[in-house]
Amino acid sequence: MKKQGIFNSQISYFVASMGHKDMLSIVDMGYPIPKDATFVDLVFDKGIPNFIDTIKMVLYELEVEKVIIAGEMEVNNLKNYQKVIDIFSNIEIEKKSHEEFKDIAKNSKFFIRTGECTPFSNIILVSGVIF
Amino acid sequence: MKKQGIFNSQISYFVASMGHKDMLSIVDMGYPIPKDATFVDLVFDKGIPNFIDTIKMVLYELEVEKVIIAGEMEVNNLKNYQKVIDIFSNIEIEKKSHEEFKDIAKNSKFFIRTGECTPFSNIILVSGVIF
Amino acid sequence: MKKQGIFNSQISYFVASMGHKDMLSIVDMGYPIPKDATFVDLVFDKGIPNFIDTIKMVLYELEVEKVIIAGEMEVNNLKNYQKVIDIFSNIEIEKKSHEEFKDIAKNSKFFIRTGECTPFSNIILVSGVIF
Amino acid sequence: MKKQGIFNSQISYFVASMGHKDMLSIVDMGYPIPKDATFVDLVFDKGIPNFIDTIKMVLYELEVEKVIIAGEMEVNNLKNYQKVIDIFSNIEIEKKSHEEFKDIAKNSKFFIRTGECTPFSNIILVSGVIF
Amino acid sequence: MKKQGIFNSQISYFVASMGHKDMLSIVDMGYPIPKDATFVDLVFDKGIPNFIDTIKMVLYELEVEKVIIAGEMEVNNLKNYQKVIDIFSNIEIEKKSHEEFKDIAKNSKFFIRTGECTPFSNIILVSGVIF
Amino acid sequence: MKKQGIFNSQISYFVASMGHKDMLSIVDMGYPIPKDATFVDLVFDKGIPNFIDTIKMVLYELEVEKVIIAGEMEVNNLKNYQKVIDIFSNIEIEKKSHEEFKDIAKNSKFFIRTGECTPFSNIILVSGVIF
Amino acid sequence: MKKQGIFNSQISYFVASMGHKDMLSIVDMGYPIPKDATFVDLVFDKGIPNFIDTIKMVLYELEVEKVIIAGEMEVNNLKNYQKVIDIFSNIEIEKKSHEEFKDIAKNSKFFIRTGECTPFSNIILVSGVIF
Amino acid sequence: MKKQGIFNSQISYFVASMGHKDMLSIVDMGYPIPKDATFVDLVFDKGIPNFIDTIKMVLYELEVEKVIIAGEMEVNNLKNYQKVIDIFSNIEIEKKSHEEFKDIAKNSKFFIRTGECTPFSNIILVSGVIF
Amino acid sequence: MKKQGIFNSQISYFVASMGHKDMLSIVDMGYPIPKDATFVDLVFDKGIPNFIDTIKMVLYELEVEKVIIAGEMEVNNLKNYQKVIDIFSNIEIEKKSHEEFKDIAKNSKFFIRTGECTPFSNIILVSGVIF
Amino acid sequence: MKKQGIFNSQISYFVASMGHKDMLSIVDMGYPIPKDATFVDLVFDKGIPNFIDTIKMVLYELEVEKVIIAGEMEVNNLKNYQKVIDIFSNIEIEKKSHEEFKDIAKNSKFFIRTGECTPFSNIILVSGVIF
Repeated sequence: MKKQGIFNSQISYFVASMGHKDMLSIVDMGYPIPKDATFVDLVFDKGIPNFIDTIKMVLYELEVEKVIIAGEMEVNNLKNYQKVIDIFSNIEIEKKSHEEFKDIAKNSKFFIRTGECTPFSNIILVSGVIF
Repeated sequence: MKKQGIFNSQISYFVASMGHKDMLSIVDMGYPIPKDATFVDLVFDKGIPNFIDTIKMVLYELEVEKVIIAGEMEVNNLKNYQKVIDIFSNIEIEKKSHEEFKDIAKNSKFFIRTGECTPFSNIILVSGVIF
Repeated sequence: MKKQGIFNSQISYFVASMGHKDMLSIVDMGYPIPKDATFVDLVFDKGIPNFIDTIKMVLYELEVEKVIIAGEMEVNNLKNYQKVIDIFSNIEIEKKSHEEFKDIAKNSKFFIRTGECTPFSNIILVSGVIF
Repeated sequence: MKKQGIFNSQISYFVASMGHKDMLSIVDMGYPIPKDATFVDLVFDKGIPNFIDTIKMVLYELEVEKVIIAGEMEVNNLKNYQKVIDIFSNIEIEKKSHEEFKDIAKNSKFFIRTGECTPFSNIILVSGVIF
Repeated sequence: MKKQGIFNSQISYFVASMGHKDMLSIVDMGYPIPKDATFVDLVFDKGIPNFIDTIKMVLYELEVEKVIIAGEMEVNNLKNYQKVIDIFSNIEIEKKSHEEFKDIAKNSKFFIRTGECTPFSNIILVSGVIF
Repeated sequence: MKKQGIFNSQISYFVASMGHKDMLSIVDMGYPIPKDATFVDLVFDKGIPNFIDTIKMVLYELEVEKVIIAGEMEVNNLKNYQKVIDIFSNIEIEKKSHEEFKDIAKNSKFFIRTGECTPFSNIILVSGVIF
Repeated sequence: MKKQGIFNSQISYFVASMGHKDMLSIVDMGYPIPKDATFVDLVFDKGIPNFIDTIKMVLYELEVEKVIIAGEMEVNNLKNYQKVIDIFSNIEIEKKSHEEFKDIAKNSKFFIRTGECTPFSNIILVSGVIF
Repeated sequence: MKKQGIFNSQISYFVASMGHKDMLSIVDMGYPIPKDATFVDLVFDKGIPNFIDTIKMVLYELEVEKVIIAGEMEVNNLKNYQKVIDIFSNIEIEKKSHEEFKDIAKNSKFFIRTGECTPFSNIILVSGVIF
Repeated sequence: MKKQGIFNSQISYFVASMGHKDMLSIVDMGYPIPKDATFVDLVFDKGIPNFIDTIKMVLYELEVEKVIIAGEMEVNNLKNYQKVIDIFSNIEIEKKSHEEFKDIAKNSKFFIRTGECTPFSNIILVSGVIF
Repeated sequence: MKKQGIFNSQISYFVASMGHKDMLSIVDMGYPIPKDATFVDLVFDKGIPNFIDTIKMVLYELEVEKVIIAGEMEVNNLKNYQKVIDIFSNIEIEKKSHEEFKDIAKNSKFFIRTGECTPFSNIILVSGVIF
């Protein structure tokens, strides 16, 4: 077995394949994942796993230099917005409209579908570089 | 979106394809899933999702007439054993040695890999029939 | 076996994978499904399963916020049109020309081909969100 | 569109590929279809399409020289048993135990999964020859 | 075995999958079938099966509302042209230049390659609707 | 286009891949082709292409050192039997029972399904060597 | 075994699938074959098989109405140019710049990579028609 | 990018999919990896990456409870044998003959091919369990 | 382009994947290559490339410790037999009956089909090890 | 085993398939390899294999006529820049901005992902021609 870090085999692969500026999107259960996208369906139940925990789990191993969220999150989901701000307090958080967000996210290398059931709980993690 | 029941798309497919006596195995993170098996890796983190919750989630939609567990669960994992007994108090619980369990489980139609990290937390759900 | 809800394994998968605004099209037997579309051929015989029953079956599990139909349905198929209006009396029903309908439907995530043999019995179910 | 006969595209293919003595199994919703089998999931809802109608539909185009059923059908599902006898009054009906039936059915070229929810409603159609 | 109608398994599938306005092209042996097209190579020998017989065979099961041919057929292949006119005397026969024909045919759902060895013996069958 | 010989693209490939002692089976429309076999469905209509013509077509390009037929052909299909004898007057014709024939034919590299509708019109062409 | 003509199984398939105006490109070992092209790598060694012999081999079976070469062949590879002129003395030889040649060649149905190691030894064989 | 641990994307996937008792084989460049095995070819050059470094790299993330080596390593490759003993000083090292080793290794879930060029530098890592 | 050695891309891959004792079979044009084998069809024409040249080409890059041939080669193809003896004068040449040869060759990792047209011109190259 | 040259089986295939002007990109561990690219992940560990060694390894067999690098390498990674200049002192080194580099690299036939962890260590090897 794997000793520590990300235990999910597919997400382990996703993270280890990410290059600088590659995008990995973590989305809520209602997100319309593009037809031809590569994604892992991690949904366990309504709200499980939640958006913030999934971000933290991925951050065990993924270096992130920037994140993109929909501006609507601040207005409609302050709780998660606040947590996102805390988690990424030291890096750039770019805000786009939800429609723009979906357009950008289409170029993600991978999607992770969570059980999150609160509005606009979607984030694009832009991979950083470890050198 | 799906309104209720099992929200994970692959597990929804698994359950809806099960025929009478077909086997679906829910296993802990350390279980050696056979090379050519069809499985969904639901591991989120150590212990998440746990064995018992995953059984309960699958039982939202799956009719079960019998379960098979390894006898060693009773000796080495009384907590989970007790819960399995409670959940399946009204149906047959067949006990096999862990080695026999693994042999039988090879014929499962599907495997669900959980984050459970307690010994012998593996179960074969033998599908019942709804008529 | 699955206890309740949608019993068809593929449609179970389709519905559980739908995100907000994703489109699932239910079409009559004569509908020209695009070459590269993902679809399930549910045709049993002429008229079976019919258009309205198939909508109702899918609605066991799919949350729908809007539907799109061809305006021609009202003119040429009042019976089905009336039933669609009844079923979706509480949500937005958008009318397009049949040609526009076909253009939009190309972006459906999935198609379900019914046995319906009455004109313009096609509908795009736009997935809603359960939170 | 197809003018008459079997309208389902996959079943049209199945039937047209059958050679003499090839087996096509029509089974109830609870039947444990083998993992590597080629099958079409025609389930619409509980009981729909039913066992007998599906047989009749397939017989639009398939020449059958013999059928195999489980003897238990006569004991536990006299209604369907009677209808099977009527439909195939002019050809050989071979009775096996349900276990033997499942063993033989493994060699079917194709399976059709119906919505039938009455016990032992499974039949192997052994293709005849039209010359 | 299949009792009657189209006996070829692939063409049975093609025809049963056709929706209204879908196009199925029957072409001579020299036709440049597009690289990514879905086609069945029915060529037996030079001239066998011929163009007209193949049309008639497909018409056992396919409802056709319109056909498209290259105008050059009338000039260079009067014999086949005459037969096409006879076969489709009751429906619309649209004439295009051979180049335009090839452009339209690219969107065919399926191609059937015959053994025909006379010029411009290509036809697009535009599926009709049976209701 | 190909100038001469076998015009069918798949059969051209089949024949060119045959090694010494490789088997290619030409069978009637009712033959139960094994599930995992590589075959071309050349059926055009009942009786077309027929068994003997198909043999002759394949012999345009295939070197054959021996053929295997079912003994029952001589008894039940003297016409075709006679023609087979004439065609292969100069090489070994091995007779087996129909059941043995089917067993041997399972190891064919390829099958060609004809439209032949007369009994026991099946033959295994055992490739010869051209040096 | 195949008695005569083109003995390579893939090239046999290529040639037999060619329709009128379809293009088959025979190229030297250094030719940049497009990523998604269908090609057979016939390279045996430097210079083997050579460009001219490969053309002649393909011409055993392929009807050609026109060929396209790069004008640079005449300037930089007179020997091969001369032979091409001799081989195709009776049909149209179209000359393009090497860049234009590569652009056109992208639409070839197939590529054959030879061992040729002399500059500009690339040719597009435009299939003719045998009726 | 991945922050730490195993940086190779495929090996990250391999390790994260390993269950208790699953086997991962690290082999030298000359090892005959079975035809249908899942393997990553990590060979960079002769001797690079070497056997021992590759073991250490995999041990960043893989829990190992037992290893299997060929007894011949001790006789013919004392240097590597010594290092293996040191690395796995605290767990069971099972010795088999090289032929037995190869037989067991066939059941490995994954193989990693290194650049090692010293004899018998092959090891089966038997996954442990982290609970 | 590749500078030297084996220029064929597939054979380059074959050779670089060979481990110690892995078998690569070079066979004449008439050899019955097993259905599920991985092979490259290098046939250019009758006799081209020939058996001996192909062996020499593969030996540019492949280390060979033993070869297996059919004893019949010595009796029926002395010319090639002699050359094989010369080429492999310094390593073990194992002789088997042609039938045994074919049985062993089934386990080859790869086959190379040559244009050789002289009897029993088949050889199994058993890969050696370069350390 | 392969005697010399490039020992990695995939890279052996890559190099042997390269035509004149085809591009092979060697990139650092952080490079965002396009989703649909064909690549080999050679990463062993941070810095291993490094950028320069990988170039040298590939140059064992690949003829290169030009290389493209990002101008930023000279500014931000003089050490590697210097080595690139030395290695390719006799051929054209084209400098582009990193963004332009990534755009051009998208058309690479293959990517090799190294363990290099220094900035802008990416290079496009433009294949030369060996005649």
